[in-house]
Amino acid sequence: MSVNQWAVGIDLGGTKIELALVDSSGHIHDRIRVPTESKDGYKAILTRIKDSSDQLCGKNKDINVSSIGIGVAGQVNKTSGIVHYAPNLGLHDVKLQENLSALLHKPVFVCNDVKAATWGEWYFGSGKNCNDMVCIFIGTGIGGGVISGGRMLDGCNNTAGEIGHTTILLDGPDCHCGNKGCFEAMAGGWAIARDARALVKADMKAGKLLLSLAGNDINQITAKTVSEAAQKDDALACSLVEKVINSIVAGSSSVINAFGPCRLIFGGGIMEGIPHLLNRIEKGVKKYALKAATQALEILPATLHNDSGVVGAATFAMKSQLHKS
Amino acid sequence: MSVNQWAVGIDLGGTKIELALVDSSGHIHDRIRVPTESKDGYKAILTRIKDSSDQLCGKNKDINVSSIGIGVAGQVNKTSGIVHYAPNLGLHDVKLQENLSALLHKPVFVCNDVKAATWGEWYFGSGKNCNDMVCIFIGTGIGGGVISGGRMLDGCNNTAGEIGHTTILLDGPDCHCGNKGCFEAMAGGWAIARDARALVKADMKAGKLLLSLAGNDINQITAKTVSEAAQKDDALACSLVEKVINSIVAGSSSVINAFGPCRLIFGGGIMEGIPHLLNRIEKGVKKYALKAATQALEILPATLHNDSGVVGAATFAMKSQLHKS
Repeated sequence: MSVNQWAVGIDLGGTKIELALVDSSGHIHDRIRVPTESKDGYKAILTRIKDSSDQLCGKNKDINVSSIGIGVAGQVNKTSGIVHYAPNLGLHDVKLQENLSALLHKPVFVCNDVKAATWGEWYFGSGKNCNDMVCIFIGTGIGGGVISGGRMLDGCNNTAGEIGHTTILLDGPDCHCGNKGCFEAMAGGWAIARDARALVKADMKAGKLLLSLAGNDINQITAKTVSEAAQKDDALACSLVEKVINSIVAGSSSVINAFGPCRLIFGGGIMEGIPHLLNRIEKGVKKYALKAATQALEILPATLHNDSGVVGAATFAMKSQLHKS
Repeated sequence: MSVNQWAVGIDLGGTKIELALVDSSGHIHDRIRVPTESKDGYKAILTRIKDSSDQLCGKNKDINVSSIGIGVAGQVNKTSGIVHYAPNLGLHDVKLQENLSALLHKPVFVCNDVKAATWGEWYFGSGKNCNDMVCIFIGTGIGGGVISGGRMLDGCNNTAGEIGHTTILLDGPDCHCGNKGCFEAMAGGWAIARDARALVKADMKAGKLLLSLAGNDINQITAKTVSEAAQKDDALACSLVEKVINSIVAGSSSVINAFGPCRLIFGGGIMEGIPHLLNRIEKGVKKYALKAATQALEILPATLHNDSGVVGAATFAMKSQLHKS
């Protein structure tokens, strides 16, 4: 990959579309962000991407963009570039790669948004020069990307890395995926909010601080409310945080034993909201995962933060183009 | 790999050492089996392997053995050929590759026994021509081997594939590994025996059949006793089997979501002891694993049975030699 190569990296999420001009060293030269407005339908999303891309490239005429990479919050076939199912975008079996490349007149490469972020961390974040690493992103949901033996694992249907849906509590709470007791259903943002609301409802006195932080509307309690209250030493919030940490340690130990990474990299909103979380996870997995699997293991925070999606999508596009040519 | 290549495949287990002359089509030409007698120590094991190998090759002088592959029940570094820890063999940090190749005057390749079995199934069993597959062996313990993108996953410390030690019940029963609620601690043979003994102890009347099948000695109840009693419709045994199936479905769904294989291959004694187990697992994972991950998934029995270890170890040796040269 020559140093003067450029790609547009796109992060297509449920609320916003982010586009960035990224070079092959992972630097962002310029960026643009527009609302997704997925309610307007697929064609409107395509138009919005085209207009934004034209605007971004028009402002940077001196830069020769060789490809477009797009990370989509959903199930994607990276070979065909078809988005099979993206519930937050209202998309079902759309030919995103074909449609976008016809509009943009450039090679387009489509991947899952979490995998795009993993590409970013692998090449330019905490995963640099590492051949065996797993990224775990804990936000509203929990997603992952796995590099093993120097390659991104895709599996049979591009589903490899769905570590948010590994069972950690048999017959545990319902998950959105239809299973029970998934890692995500125990430690994802939506699960933390669900548990907090239930606890506050059951004991309004113990939940006083949580409720007031949420403007006295129980339905406004989120994972962020819980971390805010925990930082004020609220007993209910602290006990919830302990439960979440136990779940993250269990889910991470499973990941360590299953994939045997050299580095385990954590990103996502939950990671930034709970102080000392990474230290607690490190202590926990070194106690509970197999000794042979943790001897050389490093636990690190993701470093690209909100840029991982666009930088990763662009990197994925440049790498895929190189691989194709 | 030319068709007339030959290797000696060795399966080094806690009770027996099995050696076989295997060709590059996976056929066993001759074999020999001796007790391990690990109490005699490492040097005695080495001598026993050398004597058996000499005997096997002496009987087959027309065959030119190019390499030796050995699968060891323990933690192994396949690059250095050092066995770090093999509790059932009493081995700790021994230079097996170096010591054996000095004795046998042939290139020796060392791997973990479960990975050897996976090599066997991949090349000559149910995994033939498959680039994305996971083998799950459920015997006394639970082990696994993962092929992803046409390569065996090793991870950072050759520990990838330890799927028996993924947590499926947070704060569940103690596992031998030091963690709680591992897949193995819920559905491995030793866990089934533990649960059966506890249930019989608590209710001798309900455990009557189990007890009599075990010669009226509660400590002689094993997973095999449970499957025998279940086949006679014994209520206690059947309820235990149901619990085991639930755990296998949960553990397998995690594996499917994490690795996204095209084929999931089951082997080991437990699989052969419970009738219709594979159908039950298939029905379960198609209900609980992610739809996108099960659409093209095949669930298959391992086909090499007791030969997978020696055939796999020999295949691993031939492939490793090819890769080196």
